[in-house]
Amino acid sequence: MKYPKKVIIAEVGPRDGLQNEKKILPAHVKADLIDKAIEAGYKVIEVGSMVHPKAIPALADTAEVFKMIKNKDKADLRVLIPNFKGAERAIAAGFKKIKLTVSISESHNLANFNRKPEETIASFTDSINLARENGVAVSGAMATSFGCPFEGEISIQQIDEVVKQFTALGIMELSLSDTTGMANPKDVYEKCIYFKEKYPEVTWNLHFHNTRGMAMANILAAMEAGMDRFDGAFGGLGGCPFAPGASGNIASEDIVHMLELMGIETGIDIDKAIEIAREVREHVEHDLDSCMLKAGKVSDLVLERPKGQIKPGK
Amino acid sequence: MKYPKKVIIAEVGPRDGLQNEKKILPAHVKADLIDKAIEAGYKVIEVGSMVHPKAIPALADTAEVFKMIKNKDKADLRVLIPNFKGAERAIAAGFKKIKLTVSISESHNLANFNRKPEETIASFTDSINLARENGVAVSGAMATSFGCPFEGEISIQQIDEVVKQFTALGIMELSLSDTTGMANPKDVYEKCIYFKEKYPEVTWNLHFHNTRGMAMANILAAMEAGMDRFDGAFGGLGGCPFAPGASGNIASEDIVHMLELMGIETGIDIDKAIEIAREVREHVEHDLDSCMLKAGKVSDLVLERPKGQIKPGK
Repeated sequence: MKYPKKVIIAEVGPRDGLQNEKKILPAHVKADLIDKAIEAGYKVIEVGSMVHPKAIPALADTAEVFKMIKNKDKADLRVLIPNFKGAERAIAAGFKKIKLTVSISESHNLANFNRKPEETIASFTDSINLARENGVAVSGAMATSFGCPFEGEISIQQIDEVVKQFTALGIMELSLSDTTGMANPKDVYEKCIYFKEKYPEVTWNLHFHNTRGMAMANILAAMEAGMDRFDGAFGGLGGCPFAPGASGNIASEDIVHMLELMGIETGIDIDKAIEIAREVREHVEHDLDSCMLKAGKVSDLVLERPKGQIKPGK
Repeated sequence: MKYPKKVIIAEVGPRDGLQNEKKILPAHVKADLIDKAIEAGYKVIEVGSMVHPKAIPALADTAEVFKMIKNKDKADLRVLIPNFKGAERAIAAGFKKIKLTVSISESHNLANFNRKPEETIASFTDSINLARENGVAVSGAMATSFGCPFEGEISIQQIDEVVKQFTALGIMELSLSDTTGMANPKDVYEKCIYFKEKYPEVTWNLHFHNTRGMAMANILAAMEAGMDRFDGAFGGLGGCPFAPGASGNIASEDIVHMLELMGIETGIDIDKAIEIAREVREHVEHDLDSCMLKAGKVSDLVLERPKGQIKPGK
């Protein structure tokens, strides 16, 4: 079994988590959470999205949030943009990295962006040019890479078509995203091996939801294929619109915990990561799918129960 | 990435799940659930435990439950026994397989059985002899194989000492059990590779709790090490006494679902498995940590949403 020595975990909770919450957190709370995440050691954070404010009200203040972050220079802060207008707003707000998203599945892309995937990709050119003129980095994400709720399985070839277009546009940081928690370890391994080998110059990122309990196994499979960058959301925020009540993104602190036990370096302080998740739970005012919040670390279990004080009951 | 073509999932919910429930289900309900599990394709089921009725009231009716199971001959039905008295009762009840458990950790064994591990193992001889005289099969389980809440890490050498004693007694079916959800994929892989290679004549079983979200990744790691038998509990029943509210056993139906997506045969009908978990949820009257109950299968998601009817919202 192979896995990397170091892994980078991107905290996407401020965007992919909070966008699903009924309660909208004030900008200063979001900025403070992001500063705490930077302080905890997260090196990549997705701050928000430059969608139309009416489309996702919870993210309407993304520019303001960015402005309020104190340690902007200590992490790679990216923002999702859906179109050229979003790119303009992101750059005006001062972001140094934008993320362009397209869905591999035509039905899903139509449902989300009201256009075909190739139309979405064609629309990227202007945003990319604007970003380059302003010294802003660009990354790309491919939603439904591991299955689409409308179309079912997504093939390597379908993804590859889009990867070709992204790389032709000079986008060399790409995310394979499991938008609705459909990925399984076999599919993940096969796709990761293929893309890692075919595009060694690309910085690959994986985005898993834990909707069907497979996210940690998918991370393991991806690591075995040589992948070393994963998205997570504090507290496991963020659901799937098709599965109310089901788990959302895999909890960042749960990933950090597992990797730490495996001796894989993340640079993230697990206790601080759990503390952030705890604070997020208070803000959103509902329980979260975070094993760390519910059960605590393995080491807590041991440290809290010295040998002398045993009597568990059965 | 290697994994087996076929995997056997043992349903331990009737024992390791229901023993933790406040609400005690009537014997006929348990027997009916077990018959439904057999009908769904589970080939190994842990029916209960022959502990002192006062120790675990929820399992006091194990003999009665066994008597009421209609399709006894269609599955490998085992019962946990804590001592010779338990072996006598199990054999009198008609069980054809008993399971002997010892904790690798001395502190844990003392806490659970009030004796040292070597005393527990020494006490097995009489039970094994009685079983053999009656044509009853014997399996063994080693609790805290992946960590102990009192002692912390458990080494391969510590486990090996116990494996030697079990195999010297002729017990050739053994379970490495993660009693309190402390296992991580690296530790699992290393231990599985070691024991699978050193004891190829042993039928190995793995028992994972999902307390810290790592059970599915641990199953993947174990499969890569050549293991192909895993315990699960319907609905993910069964908690950890040290982590109230945390997940218990990994849900059997979640394992079946993942393996099916990976093309690994379990012989279990996933829809029937989910239906059993749903029924269990009704009986225990509280929510369960089952992704299948919360989110459903990947294939449901796709089948329920034909291309024409899309509009997820965002």
